[in-house]
Amino acid sequence: MSQPVTTNFATPEDLEHAFYDIVSQGDADRLMQLWAEDEEILCVHPTGVRLGGHAPILESWRSIFASTRLRVDAQTVAHWQGSVLAIHHLTEILYADNDPSPHGPLHVTHVYARGAHGWRLVSRHASAADDEHQAMAEAVPHTLH
Amino acid sequence: MSQPVTTNFATPEDLEHAFYDIVSQGDADRLMQLWAEDEEILCVHPTGVRLGGHAPILESWRSIFASTRLRVDAQTVAHWQGSVLAIHHLTEILYADNDPSPHGPLHVTHVYARGAHGWRLVSRHASAADDEHQAMAEAVPHTLH
Repeated sequence: MSQPVTTNFATPEDLEHAFYDIVSQGDADRLMQLWAEDEEILCVHPTGVRLGGHAPILESWRSIFASTRLRVDAQTVAHWQGSVLAIHHLTEILYADNDPSPHGPLHVTHVYARGAHGWRLVSRHASAADDEHQAMAEAVPHTLH
Repeated sequence: MSQPVTTNFATPEDLEHAFYDIVSQGDADRLMQLWAEDEEILCVHPTGVRLGGHAPILESWRSIFASTRLRVDAQTVAHWQGSVLAIHHLTEILYADNDPSPHGPLHVTHVYARGAHGWRLVSRHASAADDEHQAMAEAVPHTLH
């Protein structure tokens, strides 16, 4: 059974921390409590499937968690902060079940919105990174500076 | 040579319209004038390559335009609007050169920020859609309502 979850997050960072905690627990119902209730919500999975609305998004995470125990190492690459909207762009490295090999990485754009009950997730866009070119791109700043 | 471009956009929609116009003209230099100058900027291409900063992003679009004339049919799927940030999630269908067959679709998250010179692009995250599942996902609302 799902346990009660605090959903009044004072900052996007608190919300994001809870998101990855709950992913690691594999609890789709609790995960959905982090999404906005009163707005359209979107989730693009790295398979290229885009889902809109609570029911399809919940179902997709239930399906993921039914087959795989996930741990996500998420690193913020860039973020933009407004009074009611915040965007975090992250790199996610995934660890599945007891496999010590990392999977991914994924490029992830999270959009957070502040409503009456604090910050909530409104959009997650995840896609597979091109490893080889990614390594090149990340080497550029070291080359230039 | 690049022609002068109006870069003081009063709304994210005006900026987005200019973005697709300039893409269809294949002008990478003008395209970069739509991006924020004073912030970190990001571009994730559907190949999975993520680029940060003006020079790498400019180079990538020059490379795309050097080989392909693109026309993009972009449809807004969802958008969130704040006072200084706006997010548009779109579906892009691409037409390349004189090929009448559509390519894609792509899932695209655009992040726009309002600065001293109006709205500018700060992040573009594009990834390939899974056509088959996409069709299923889009059928869901019609089934439920």
